[in-house]
Amino acid sequence: MGHDFAYPPVDFETRPDRYRHWKLSFDGPVATLCMDIDPDGGLWPGKYELKLNSYDLGVDIELADATQRLRFEHPEVKVVLVTGPKDAKVFCAGANIKMLGMAPHAFKVNFCKFTNETRVNLEDAAAHSGQTYVAALSGTASGGGYELALACKEIWLIEDGNAAVSLPEVPLLGVLPGTGGLTRITDKRKIRRDMADVFCTKAEGFRAKEALKHAFIDRAWSRSQWESGSAARAQEIAAATPDKTGPGVPLPALERRETETGWAYRYVTVDFDRANADRVVTLTLSGPTSAPVRDASTWSLQAFRELDDALLRIRVNHLAVGVILVRTRGDAEAILAHEAHVSDNLTSDWFWKEVQLFQARTLRRLDNTAKTLFAILDEGSAFVGTLFELALACDRQYMFADEDGDNRIRLSPANDGPFPMASGITRLAARFPGTPELHTAAVAHKGSIDAEKAEKLGLVTASLDDIDWEDEVRIAVEERVSLSPDALTGMEQNLRFGGAETCETRIYGRLSAWQNWIFQRPNAVGERGALTMYGDPERPIFDYNRT
Amino acid sequence: MGHDFAYPPVDFETRPDRYRHWKLSFDGPVATLCMDIDPDGGLWPGKYELKLNSYDLGVDIELADATQRLRFEHPEVKVVLVTGPKDAKVFCAGANIKMLGMAPHAFKVNFCKFTNETRVNLEDAAAHSGQTYVAALSGTASGGGYELALACKEIWLIEDGNAAVSLPEVPLLGVLPGTGGLTRITDKRKIRRDMADVFCTKAEGFRAKEALKHAFIDRAWSRSQWESGSAARAQEIAAATPDKTGPGVPLPALERRETETGWAYRYVTVDFDRANADRVVTLTLSGPTSAPVRDASTWSLQAFRELDDALLRIRVNHLAVGVILVRTRGDAEAILAHEAHVSDNLTSDWFWKEVQLFQARTLRRLDNTAKTLFAILDEGSAFVGTLFELALACDRQYMFADEDGDNRIRLSPANDGPFPMASGITRLAARFPGTPELHTAAVAHKGSIDAEKAEKLGLVTASLDDIDWEDEVRIAVEERVSLSPDALTGMEQNLRFGGAETCETRIYGRLSAWQNWIFQRPNAVGERGALTMYGDPERPIFDYNRT
Repeated sequence: MGHDFAYPPVDFETRPDRYRHWKLSFDGPVATLCMDIDPDGGLWPGKYELKLNSYDLGVDIELADATQRLRFEHPEVKVVLVTGPKDAKVFCAGANIKMLGMAPHAFKVNFCKFTNETRVNLEDAAAHSGQTYVAALSGTASGGGYELALACKEIWLIEDGNAAVSLPEVPLLGVLPGTGGLTRITDKRKIRRDMADVFCTKAEGFRAKEALKHAFIDRAWSRSQWESGSAARAQEIAAATPDKTGPGVPLPALERRETETGWAYRYVTVDFDRANADRVVTLTLSGPTSAPVRDASTWSLQAFRELDDALLRIRVNHLAVGVILVRTRGDAEAILAHEAHVSDNLTSDWFWKEVQLFQARTLRRLDNTAKTLFAILDEGSAFVGTLFELALACDRQYMFADEDGDNRIRLSPANDGPFPMASGITRLAARFPGTPELHTAAVAHKGSIDAEKAEKLGLVTASLDDIDWEDEVRIAVEERVSLSPDALTGMEQNLRFGGAETCETRIYGRLSAWQNWIFQRPNAVGERGALTMYGDPERPIFDYNRT
Repeated sequence: MGHDFAYPPVDFETRPDRYRHWKLSFDGPVATLCMDIDPDGGLWPGKYELKLNSYDLGVDIELADATQRLRFEHPEVKVVLVTGPKDAKVFCAGANIKMLGMAPHAFKVNFCKFTNETRVNLEDAAAHSGQTYVAALSGTASGGGYELALACKEIWLIEDGNAAVSLPEVPLLGVLPGTGGLTRITDKRKIRRDMADVFCTKAEGFRAKEALKHAFIDRAWSRSQWESGSAARAQEIAAATPDKTGPGVPLPALERRETETGWAYRYVTVDFDRANADRVVTLTLSGPTSAPVRDASTWSLQAFRELDDALLRIRVNHLAVGVILVRTRGDAEAILAHEAHVSDNLTSDWFWKEVQLFQARTLRRLDNTAKTLFAILDEGSAFVGTLFELALACDRQYMFADEDGDNRIRLSPANDGPFPMASGITRLAARFPGTPELHTAAVAHKGSIDAEKAEKLGLVTASLDDIDWEDEVRIAVEERVSLSPDALTGMEQNLRFGGAETCETRIYGRLSAWQNWIFQRPNAVGERGALTMYGDPERPIFDYNRT
């Protein structure tokens, strides 16, 4: 199998005692997540130094892990202060430019996507889990550093005549603040666009006074007031947040083992298709084999943690994979019973709410995966309720019509609310933009649905009988892997995200597309491009033709 | 001055007796716009042949001219049938691939933008001018040909076992259907995204029966029923459309003359700034010098026609221009009097409604221009009402604060409705996403506003007095032209279009960004890329890494 590039394969699992770049500490309801980056701790040893608290994917994997553990293991936490080392002049200088300069384009794009997902998840924790992230900036936050702050609910900046917030990507690097910054200043912080324009072209940014005036930050204190001011405000936020009852749930490492054709966890397997030059993988998710329990081994959580890890590994370590065939196995009743257990306990126990929120995030990770997704509803499949969301996330759904009509799908309340796409609407609603009556019919449908009916209801792309099934699916996959991967990415990005737009969809759909374009242009990555020349005393040379 | 590329400068003015590619004919309320492309009539003589009714920018300039004249010169027209030559197997094969292959990237992007604007304007005519465009396809419409049809209100396809509609860009060319097609099938025609996925990867597309089933077309008739069926439906649409009274208004050619520093029309001048290597132009629009008249010479129409032409020429013939400084001159009262004349006569005479609609389209052309726009509200400026929209369209507004406070701006009802951005909201509303009270205050404000107050109200970026004015503006411009033009384009695209999203904003903001990216990738334009290899018997070679 192996990964497809010269960089070592990335492992997305970690835990606090292994962190090299973040220090997580607790003081009652207030946790502090201190970014203190080990310059020699980059993902590709010896290749670049993480100077000035700049980050790479490894740093962000730790951040993602910390935010996840805070939700499951520390229900007592209500405020998370994101800070830099005490008295450091720089909170964070953003993504490491040298790493960006040497990374293959596909890695860069995947890196940006993962960091964006992590930022969005800070907002998700604040909105849904009663854990408010606050950027407590006692030093300068520039570029990706300020973008991390923008993903927090509040931004505090020390007023010491020195510390500033800035987005110097355009003037210094010839690229965009692509980790959501450009979108969040207008869409989230509602800053006037001419002021945003001034800010984004001013390399040194704004210090506290000016930043506060134009809403680039929320609060500022002088050095002498910093500790008391920020502590008081943190307590204020904590006091306004309801308590959670019930103990935290530890998240043990996933057990992943290599197989002959890929790898496997307990409920999820990943199998590469040699006949298609390993460019097709089958991802199979199996249903529960035991009753729900209140710990991380419960199927609803463990299966989705495995799915999440599998998606990340396929994205980053297997760039050449073009198609993911999504399959399910298991007992429909057992799947629905686990789903019901989650939804029945949502309000009484935060843990089950967290499980559902995590499932929702994992499904959005699937939506956001730049590989073609075909749902294979073959004999023995179990696309029911929550698992039918997997099918709905796919670009196409192929369903086997067995003679007896035993192969069936089934909708449940899980398809009508708890798992919104980034746009805020459900996958089922997004599926029927022009035929809301089909949406209503699908939601109202009770009982299981065979292939023929599923096609009629518009719930699958094609219902195929014994004669056609194998050939049609095989040909569809072979055709798909023959097409331009860039054109497919662009096409899927445009087709997948219909309906409403949100700050989040605009980050992924618009900002990221422009950034991808800029990351390909000689003005950024050419021999004398701005990214290439960064740190060089000579100026970059631009082709000034405007497009 | 000159143009910046090896291709000859493009002239955007034409008239029906000069058309080489379209035949415009009339039958009462039904006009027919027949695309019959002269293969030897390409913009760059001898460079490529416009085979299979494929088009280039020259073809689209004629189409844009025809739609414009239909609105002003032919108020009796209620239905416009867009057709191909009788009995031709192919209606239109889309944009000419050979032309795209040899065009510089910036030209390609500008070409796509212009064709997109022309498509959007077909929809604008149907929505606001009572002229319904219908694609009457008696032959196959593929790629850009079908995208042109998608911009029409109805699509009819002959059912002859042969004719089809298709978007073969992804499978055949490795690029997107970037002239709005990918967005319109989901956002406008509301087609389910898995069916859209199947369609967009199926090079041969759908013939009438399948196309009708999945809503890719609206009506189909057999060859024997085609003429009667389509004539009857055209009459039906015409009958449901109200009559207009008052004669058509001919649109004479603009009088454009070269000057020492650029060029000039009657109300608009374009001056290149040699000190900035011709990379900065000042665009000055002057107010009226005579009373409103019901013909094309009336200031409200003529000045905006000149502005529109100037913008197109700067975009396409002067790629290296990075900054447009927008200035105004004239008498505020006279400008407001002309504006009042337009709005007072909107409902009684279609002509004045058309004038206002044209102003709105030209302002959206300005929004959509990939050059930095700075409004220079200097001494003697006349940014009032409609002309203040020019300032609001800019990325920044610099206002001179003279000692006596004589330099003033003024809002009018023109800033509160008639000139929506592509998002459907006004520029003034879009300016204040987080402070609707400032929007309300601005709309409610009566009388003129001096620089200091304008800054306080958030209507300008900076008010600068005598001491600072010259230096600050000069430095801002010099800084701007030193930055990466790609990063600026990406930044401005993200900052300019806040607020609501529409099919139109998604075409320009999302689809176009992905297409720009794909147009840069070796998989499309490399030596063995799909665009380069098109027509070659050998297959393209792809780097399959997915991003």
